[in-house]
Amino acid sequence: MKTIACLLGVVVALTGVLCYMAGAPGYAGEEAAPIFGIKIPPGYRDWAVVSVAHEEGSNNDLRAVLGNDVAIKAYREGRLPFPDGAIIARLAWSYVSSEQNNKVFGRAQSFVAGAPINVQFMVKNSVKYATTGGWGFAQFKDGKPADETTLKTCFPCHEPFKAGDLVFTHYSP
Amino acid sequence: MKTIACLLGVVVALTGVLCYMAGAPGYAGEEAAPIFGIKIPPGYRDWAVVSVAHEEGSNNDLRAVLGNDVAIKAYREGRLPFPDGAIIARLAWSYVSSEQNNKVFGRAQSFVAGAPINVQFMVKNSVKYATTGGWGFAQFKDGKPADETTLKTCFPCHEPFKAGDLVFTHYSP
Repeated sequence: MKTIACLLGVVVALTGVLCYMAGAPGYAGEEAAPIFGIKIPPGYRDWAVVSVAHEEGSNNDLRAVLGNDVAIKAYREGRLPFPDGAIIARLAWSYVSSEQNNKVFGRAQSFVAGAPINVQFMVKNSVKYATTGGWGFAQFKDGKPADETTLKTCFPCHEPFKAGDLVFTHYSP
Repeated sequence: MKTIACLLGVVVALTGVLCYMAGAPGYAGEEAAPIFGIKIPPGYRDWAVVSVAHEEGSNNDLRAVLGNDVAIKAYREGRLPFPDGAIIARLAWSYVSSEQNNKVFGRAQSFVAGAPINVQFMVKNSVKYATTGGWGFAQFKDGKPADETTLKTCFPCHEPFKAGDLVFTHYSP
């Protein structure tokens, strides 16, 4: 009986591990980004879409902006400033021409997401991040956080958008 | 006591309606698309992102491709063909230059999602849609389904992608 209970325990534990792996898409990482101490929020890859964009220039990317439940609710209700607990994620992929799709369209018109570039997060905490407009900033590439020099550029760039609580992206219905 | 119970009932009912409205983003519609009889799947606007794309030409859009749980699981496991119950949504918005963002970047490099164009769905049902590769197709604009002529163009366009089970979009991590 003890052996069966033990075996059951192992099966349950293994199932737990497998379920965790299957249910943990996107990049996971235990390492916190500098300055703001933000780790990759678990499950962010399943968050709802705020909007999408294409940046030319040195970025040359396609991007999806996602929000956790708090952020999405605030967006849909038009609530500004965003409440504490809101997290906004920006996923960027390289901007590549799709040979597969262009064959169907008969012309080079289709651009799709290529390799992942990086993932950025804005975390709202009006107390903890009071000196940067209530937002903490983080950036990760393959699960590894960007350095302090990179993160110091976030706030000055977002600061002009005071009317939108420092958030560039508008919600797309 | 009866009056209080009745009033409570009204409050509960109204709260229910308000919660439903707040929790039902995206377009809702009771009208089914022709040929395949597909209605707008409830809650699709909360589905996880498969990928994003930009189509030039007559489309001139930015698009997000989302999947329901069945579709996302299949994508992440690399499972082909997609199992019955998988639904893939394609949301398209007009491709517009962002004056707001370009001011920050100091050059015209930022393109964002403008007005919604339409929403398309692919619904996997290998029995019901056996004659169209196991997929049913639908398109809606402001909740209203596209006509039969439009929907007749879906399958011939998707048909060449037999290796990918007729699905153009690849999953972006």
